[in-house]
Amino acid sequence: MRKILRVNMSDLSVREEDMSQSDFWLGGRGLTSRIIAREVDPGAHPLGAQNKLVFAPGSLGGLGVPCSGRLSVGGKSPLTGGIKEANAGGMAALRLSSLGLAALVVEGRPADGGPYILWVGKSGAKLLPAHNLKGLGNYELVEQLLDTSQGAATISIGPAGENCLPVAGVAVTNIEGYPARFAARGGLGAVMGSKGLKAILIEKSDNHRAGPADPESFKKICQQFAQEVSSLRKGLTQYGTANLVSLVNEMGGLPTRNYSAGKFEDADKISAGALIEKISRRGGKMGHPCHTGCVIRCSNIYNDSQGKYLTSSLEYETIALLGSNCGIGDLDAIAAMDRICDDYGLDTIEMGATLGVAMEAGILEFGDQQGAIGLLHQVGKASSVLGRLLGHGVQVAGQVLGVKRIPAVKGQSMAAYDPRVFKGTGVSYATSPMGADHTAGNLLPGKQGYSWPVRKGVARCSQVEGQWQLSEETQVITTVCDLTGLCFFIGTTRENLDYVARLFNAYYGFEAERYDVVQWGRQVLLEEIDFNRRAGFTGVDDRLPEFFQTEPLPPSGEVFDIPEKDLKKLFK
Amino acid sequence: MRKILRVNMSDLSVREEDMSQSDFWLGGRGLTSRIIAREVDPGAHPLGAQNKLVFAPGSLGGLGVPCSGRLSVGGKSPLTGGIKEANAGGMAALRLSSLGLAALVVEGRPADGGPYILWVGKSGAKLLPAHNLKGLGNYELVEQLLDTSQGAATISIGPAGENCLPVAGVAVTNIEGYPARFAARGGLGAVMGSKGLKAILIEKSDNHRAGPADPESFKKICQQFAQEVSSLRKGLTQYGTANLVSLVNEMGGLPTRNYSAGKFEDADKISAGALIEKISRRGGKMGHPCHTGCVIRCSNIYNDSQGKYLTSSLEYETIALLGSNCGIGDLDAIAAMDRICDDYGLDTIEMGATLGVAMEAGILEFGDQQGAIGLLHQVGKASSVLGRLLGHGVQVAGQVLGVKRIPAVKGQSMAAYDPRVFKGTGVSYATSPMGADHTAGNLLPGKQGYSWPVRKGVARCSQVEGQWQLSEETQVITTVCDLTGLCFFIGTTRENLDYVARLFNAYYGFEAERYDVVQWGRQVLLEEIDFNRRAGFTGVDDRLPEFFQTEPLPPSGEVFDIPEKDLKKLFK
Repeated sequence: MRKILRVNMSDLSVREEDMSQSDFWLGGRGLTSRIIAREVDPGAHPLGAQNKLVFAPGSLGGLGVPCSGRLSVGGKSPLTGGIKEANAGGMAALRLSSLGLAALVVEGRPADGGPYILWVGKSGAKLLPAHNLKGLGNYELVEQLLDTSQGAATISIGPAGENCLPVAGVAVTNIEGYPARFAARGGLGAVMGSKGLKAILIEKSDNHRAGPADPESFKKICQQFAQEVSSLRKGLTQYGTANLVSLVNEMGGLPTRNYSAGKFEDADKISAGALIEKISRRGGKMGHPCHTGCVIRCSNIYNDSQGKYLTSSLEYETIALLGSNCGIGDLDAIAAMDRICDDYGLDTIEMGATLGVAMEAGILEFGDQQGAIGLLHQVGKASSVLGRLLGHGVQVAGQVLGVKRIPAVKGQSMAAYDPRVFKGTGVSYATSPMGADHTAGNLLPGKQGYSWPVRKGVARCSQVEGQWQLSEETQVITTVCDLTGLCFFIGTTRENLDYVARLFNAYYGFEAERYDVVQWGRQVLLEEIDFNRRAGFTGVDDRLPEFFQTEPLPPSGEVFDIPEKDLKKLFK
Repeated sequence: MRKILRVNMSDLSVREEDMSQSDFWLGGRGLTSRIIAREVDPGAHPLGAQNKLVFAPGSLGGLGVPCSGRLSVGGKSPLTGGIKEANAGGMAALRLSSLGLAALVVEGRPADGGPYILWVGKSGAKLLPAHNLKGLGNYELVEQLLDTSQGAATISIGPAGENCLPVAGVAVTNIEGYPARFAARGGLGAVMGSKGLKAILIEKSDNHRAGPADPESFKKICQQFAQEVSSLRKGLTQYGTANLVSLVNEMGGLPTRNYSAGKFEDADKISAGALIEKISRRGGKMGHPCHTGCVIRCSNIYNDSQGKYLTSSLEYETIALLGSNCGIGDLDAIAAMDRICDDYGLDTIEMGATLGVAMEAGILEFGDQQGAIGLLHQVGKASSVLGRLLGHGVQVAGQVLGVKRIPAVKGQSMAAYDPRVFKGTGVSYATSPMGADHTAGNLLPGKQGYSWPVRKGVARCSQVEGQWQLSEETQVITTVCDLTGLCFFIGTTRENLDYVARLFNAYYGFEAERYDVVQWGRQVLLEEIDFNRRAGFTGVDDRLPEFFQTEPLPPSGEVFDIPEKDLKKLFK
């Protein structure tokens, strides 16, 4: 039986409770969202004692299923004011799963403000004062905390989280012990900071989970799934997500200079080709897995010009938001910014979008790398009013700086897909309970139309027809990935729902089929939407900013023209 | 027949239309809110071309009714995101009324950004380019525009409005031609700025309105009303609104150092006594009317230590918010700040609340007068990031600066009545469609309980029972005042509703009674609430910030304990 660990920061106590057997399918985002929706007052202040912060591996995590190492982090978001789940790769989910833990629930606030660290191991869990770790960046923190030879993993925040900035994310260590994987979005690092929790250290242990009901069948399905995924996702293994730079640029949807254009003249300098060239020349690594058991291995290790480790992993969204969106066409500068963000614990997507509006407001010139790096330091340390302002994300910063073009929904910045060209992803931005979030329902572009799902009648990403249906389906399948702990790079396809059903059946002796799995996903989404409704969200919040509808995107001239009646059809 | 003047800033045209006869009762807030609710998309950006800005004298304005000179200004608010009406005294409403104008409706945006001035006179209206007036403070602007000997009046914005800051108000000239009366709240000055309209100049004219149906009776009612009001409001004539400083301080509800206390140790230095002493010694004036026909005359003229005009009028809310709320116990400093705010066109209430959170955040020490003045200049000129931030009001500034105690509802700061002690006003703050606004339903304290309305069973301002009913009634009667152009200082009493009915009957030959007048007020409120609902407001927005419920106010120890179920009862 899986356990839930309740960590009360107000009285510094820890207690375990059993999870209901009938909730066997529930994990990851399903569990974080259920706990938040049922236990947190939707009117609670996100940084107050009443909010909770939940960490949960997926329900298929730690069982030997390929690509199932995502860790969900959930709470009421200080950025959106709604329910939030952000998930990360890295080793923490597998370690928690091995200990038989379905979730850590962090509640209350310490009277002394902290910080504390939470140690979790075979013999239990305890909170330890950690005043000596106050203000440390994630890298130095992890260096002090983690004995990587023992295979432990950490979940931690940098100074941005300690300063409760809504752009702060939660870092998770990868296989090498670098705090480079992030549950970045929605300011959950600030929630962790508000609870006075600097880090969670999770021991490596033998697997405490019961074995599968049908071990042979389970093993066979895992092998088949691994083979299929690794063969279908060879592009991701070879080029990483950076492969999208050229593709999205060619399609004219690459955020450029705060969404004023969809093509960037220096796209080739920040493309996968340029990345691979730099990485291979400097002894970095492509095809790197962020956790054991990943057969896609889309991650990379980026060394500096001296061949010394700089950052991991340089992803498409980071490259686009900190790069083209800021008019910066230099991979080394982007990698340096990525490292700085990871160290302070800043969401690279939100920061890139925020630097974009700061540049549009004239705080910096577009393309000013050194200026941008200077601003990231001000944000990370919350060392100036400007730093604090930018640390509140693109919506607040854009508004205060008087910028008209603010690429956000529900207070959260979009990721690196201009919705005027990628209209299905635009529908997801508008309607996801998570705010504008590519991981909540990304209709990834392929050479023709979308990569997956492929549907008759949707030949182009920029057509109007069929997009809301594709978005709804993709949001549901993505939620299934998020609750099982599967990385959505396996492909948000209907066929993969069958794999999920078969895996549950072989492990738990259940008799699920595709339909049941879809219902699990829908149930989680509806619970999230209901939380947001109780928190004060209405249909008005399910819209894109007006400029996407009125301002044609050069050079394609596309606008976001999905009618509002379509946006209202989802999840009805 | 009254006319509506449509001013299209996009093509710089002006046209007149007739108002329906059956809407004879509709004016002021009733008319601004109806036009906004029916013509503006609730999803429109408040500073975009789709928003409208409406100026309307009350339906009893300019007819010789005492105290009927309020000018309503309405639009979608950049501060609250909801519908907004703010009204001001001064001479503009009477001048518009005399011209037979029920409303000016400013629409669109000029291609060149402006600024323009709108000239309105007997022979029509026209827009004139006014690039030479760009950036002028209200005082210098009016000096250049206004020939006071001709009795004209202006409506104008200072640099804060031109910079589209949500703390910018709209200035109206008083009898002497000083731009000292403000439709201050909700950022309507920014809406005027977004439309490229720097000022409206209104000629004096003979009365173009038709005479009363029953001239003798109308005259008699006006006289009786004038006598009654002037006799009941002698305290306001003698002491002005500053009289509230001592009373509210004694009751323990005076906002002090960002709402951390309800009593201020230097209250006597900023009281009516201190004000009267300074004003009389320096040749200023108490008992000053802001427009002709006012029999209450609560305004004052405040001269500096050299006896030279400094500002008009120093009101209770300005004294409390810029004074005790900032720990400043010096009337000369407060008067200097008031003058600076009027000149830039800043809402003194929002600014005082915002300086309070800036001080709590450590930007300045509480009590730092020179520092506060320096910040007001930064805001007014929008000359720094900090200035822009504070120019977005207490909610945004408090949030970005990491302050927990933010005294705002629907994004707008409270006025000078701590809702933990003045619970009826607290209910109005929470539930008014205008945001936390004392003028939307203020239950003014008297020596025992409330001044008016007086009800059995509500002996104390701090009791729980009966408050929601009193607030609802006061909001309705206040709306009646606002739509007729009557100053709510006549008293928001049921008896005054009878006066309103009798005045309409004698003027228009109608047969209204108290019940009809109440229905007019309710109808306007419900239309406003419906606009807000369509703009995305829900019951969640009808709450006070949590700290008022959890943090007892020293020294009384009171909290705001009106149950949420009571708040949900209003306007059902």
